[in-house]
Amino acid sequence: MACSNKDPCRKEPTCPPKCAYVSNPYLETMEEDVLYHFDLGTKTHNLHAMFGDVKFVCVGGSSSRMKAFSQYMNELLGLGRATDDIPNICAHTDRYSMYKVGPVLAVSHGMGIPSMSIMLHELIKLLYHAKCTDVVAFRIGTSGGIGLQPGTVVISKVSVDACFQPHFEQNVMGTIKPYSTVLNECLVQELLNCSKETNQFDTIIGTTLCTSDFYEGQARLDGAFCNYTHEDKMKYLNRAYDAGVRNIEMESSIFAAMCNRSGLPGAVVCVTLLDRLQGDQIGSSHEVLAEYQERPQKLVGCYIKKKFCKM
Amino acid sequence: MACSNKDPCRKEPTCPPKCAYVSNPYLETMEEDVLYHFDLGTKTHNLHAMFGDVKFVCVGGSSSRMKAFSQYMNELLGLGRATDDIPNICAHTDRYSMYKVGPVLAVSHGMGIPSMSIMLHELIKLLYHAKCTDVVAFRIGTSGGIGLQPGTVVISKVSVDACFQPHFEQNVMGTIKPYSTVLNECLVQELLNCSKETNQFDTIIGTTLCTSDFYEGQARLDGAFCNYTHEDKMKYLNRAYDAGVRNIEMESSIFAAMCNRSGLPGAVVCVTLLDRLQGDQIGSSHEVLAEYQERPQKLVGCYIKKKFCKM
Repeated sequence: MACSNKDPCRKEPTCPPKCAYVSNPYLETMEEDVLYHFDLGTKTHNLHAMFGDVKFVCVGGSSSRMKAFSQYMNELLGLGRATDDIPNICAHTDRYSMYKVGPVLAVSHGMGIPSMSIMLHELIKLLYHAKCTDVVAFRIGTSGGIGLQPGTVVISKVSVDACFQPHFEQNVMGTIKPYSTVLNECLVQELLNCSKETNQFDTIIGTTLCTSDFYEGQARLDGAFCNYTHEDKMKYLNRAYDAGVRNIEMESSIFAAMCNRSGLPGAVVCVTLLDRLQGDQIGSSHEVLAEYQERPQKLVGCYIKKKFCKM
Repeated sequence: MACSNKDPCRKEPTCPPKCAYVSNPYLETMEEDVLYHFDLGTKTHNLHAMFGDVKFVCVGGSSSRMKAFSQYMNELLGLGRATDDIPNICAHTDRYSMYKVGPVLAVSHGMGIPSMSIMLHELIKLLYHAKCTDVVAFRIGTSGGIGLQPGTVVISKVSVDACFQPHFEQNVMGTIKPYSTVLNECLVQELLNCSKETNQFDTIIGTTLCTSDFYEGQARLDGAFCNYTHEDKMKYLNRAYDAGVRNIEMESSIFAAMCNRSGLPGAVVCVTLLDRLQGDQIGSSHEVLAEYQERPQKLVGCYIKKKFCKM
């Protein structure tokens, strides 16, 4: 498949450029839209002036990692900002952090599907209000690996649920609606190409298991509660491996589903911090873990730099 | 029902004092337990020395609110610490924040069930490793009200899911196990008595709806996506009201379920920031919202002070 430079989701250009992202007739009727968890709003902020040039959105769980990513992109793209001159745009709330350098917007999302979901609703509305076009989205993060050397980076081709199904079940007023969690195929390939070019660490394409719980939901034996056995755990992880699962985390399914619903091409790039077939506890030193955590940002940084140079 | 001073969950004292909380035979076999998301561990920290005297655990979504709560309790209990001398015990990670003043431990939990679940697993293990006894737990937070004046405080008698059922469905390796989300009846009554004594704001006992989504899951019309109508929304909220629901938030069900599983008496005290029958957006000023957010901490502070004086 040939990849377009601007938007890996679209094989043919559309005219006018795609900038809707939202799908909600009520938004047009609102006098003001307060993006409560960002502490931003359409009356209090000129969102178009602030964000209209955003082309790359990168989200990750931790605030400090998103700050570090924005500093890294500032360097990599040669944007010339002083490192300590990249303010947290959401400084008046501690729900999320947000940093912008040139066309790159970095936003933290906390842990778990609900926290990611709130952030993405408001982020997608922000892109809409700011009239952004041709945006690509990335989640960079950490995960537990299955049958991989710790430090391996997994580019997700699909996110699956606890029964290894490729969908996210959205609960709308008590009724379940499933959405596809297949990720953008072209972005996956382009990111794999970046990993070959940088050639600094092992990177694979795999299926990602997304759970709503870190302990019992991921078959760990080290939670406060555990009423299953080591054998049960190994059986489940081996079933996951046989289903193509190579890593486990807690946000990819809602990210994939909301990217699909909004028409945002999206990719999930997570480093594995341990091999769950060998244990449950993350025992590596802070230094080793810190280096692992730089890997997804290097891969996504490489992709963004290539596109940025052609802009 | 007569309420014991020490532990509202137990009608009769047990001997030795209840300090297990965990229910996991594997924990005994572990050489070290790293509480990864707290950046604490049994080998690196003397958890008994650090936390052995904890009697009151108070959790809330926001880091800054938990810091403010610890400062407030320091004043209220006359513990004499300088306000800027209450360090964040989890300062080496930005996943959660933790503050301790005397017997009071305040911990942030982020937004949503998964984020609360990770924190509670590690908190319950912390109480176990620290050999804590007779601990009472509180969640203080914000919520959307149904049919209530904004600013009303709701003490939850039970947390229900999107179908108004009083359980939390724990997914363990793809299999669903339901746990009761009924909250400690005696604590509810004692907190209501505190509200009558302080008499500063409206406080009621009600059922709390816990959702995994802020927008579609709570029938909001102002999310990035909305494929239902204002009429659908009102029907759902009115059904919720008829089922006894007086407020909606995103963490009470897992909090109640894990308190029940661990034997921790637990209470959920949330202020309502708006009346969802009147709208979806939180439009009050920062000042008004800040004052509302102090209300749950005042109520829980009153309870803790009464118990502290009898210790």
